[in-house]
Amino acid sequence: SSAPGTVGVGVDHELISAVPSSNPTFVSRNFTDAEVRYCRSQPSPAASFAARWAGKEAVFKSLGVSSKGAGAGMKDIEILPDASGVPTVALHGEAKSAAGAKGVKSVLVSLSHSESVAIAFAQASA
Amino acid sequence: SSAPGTVGVGVDHELISAVPSSNPTFVSRNFTDAEVRYCRSQPSPAASFAARWAGKEAVFKSLGVSSKGAGAGMKDIEILPDASGVPTVALHGEAKSAAGAKGVKSVLVSLSHSESVAIAFAQASA
Amino acid sequence: SSAPGTVGVGVDHELISAVPSSNPTFVSRNFTDAEVRYCRSQPSPAASFAARWAGKEAVFKSLGVSSKGAGAGMKDIEILPDASGVPTVALHGEAKSAAGAKGVKSVLVSLSHSESVAIAFAQASA
Repeated sequence: SSAPGTVGVGVDHELISAVPSSNPTFVSRNFTDAEVRYCRSQPSPAASFAARWAGKEAVFKSLGVSSKGAGAGMKDIEILPDASGVPTVALHGEAKSAAGAKGVKSVLVSLSHSESVAIAFAQASA
Repeated sequence: SSAPGTVGVGVDHELISAVPSSNPTFVSRNFTDAEVRYCRSQPSPAASFAARWAGKEAVFKSLGVSSKGAGAGMKDIEILPDASGVPTVALHGEAKSAAGAKGVKSVLVSLSHSESVAIAFAQASA
Repeated sequence: SSAPGTVGVGVDHELISAVPSSNPTFVSRNFTDAEVRYCRSQPSPAASFAARWAGKEAVFKSLGVSSKGAGAGMKDIEILPDASGVPTVALHGEAKSAAGAKGVKSVLVSLSHSESVAIAFAQASA
């Protein structure tokens, strides 16, 4: 069980209109300050928030953790672009603990959005 | 060719309305009894059947096997939640044979559905 | 950094109607001759072009390279079916150079389309 390889995968998609990114309470509860700054700097903040939301759900699925219940919060999954613009996952709090307990060393994520839909994929590796 | 690693990936998406899950013949031909029980216990059985259908297609793609022709039946791919709720793939019949011939040791799958669309991703590993 | 494993993943989706596959200049600039022949031989050429377009975008994401700027052209990513019908990636030009610089040995891709949407997933491995 400690051999390298993929531990889990996750896919998620959301209607952009279904992610209430204009609600300040929703945003501050689920996104880190750095994520908020990044999304608000993008051409379509609503699309960026929705893509990131789908990304967080996909990461939870790749870790085998339900995002509802179990105390795992969306803010524990932080997705920010690296210097090349590649979305990169940082785990905090209970998400980090869950990953550690499963021997997960890294989580890759990719995001895509059109005008109405956001799709994300995540892969957790040992 | 026997080294560990990913052998194939598969993605599929379906309109939930395009999967005739209220047709008993369609359901019994393509889903195992345990899958039927599970889908009917979910808040939206139609969405659960469609997500599982997309999952089966994605698994076939990850195995490099067409789901049409070649005798490979959708019922040979069984997707059921494990104790943590993570969808888990069991292969039977010709799908199991095809996987064995390619050295596939495990197949990971993830499912996502909104109100109208189901999306699935699968990864086959040696 | 030379250990085997997944280097990057990419997901993309496109509205089929948003990919101008009836524009000859667009087609010849972005698809190889073999891709054009293949797409035109399919039941829905527009869907095949759009799925391939999404595939190219997903491959770029899996390589950590933006498809815009950096000189990376869509034609450098060629996606054609192998003998079993599995979509297979060949890299040319700057995409091949970028992959080599990151130690990428292979890129797997999967494509899916419905009547209106095309979705693709790619995984780059060292």
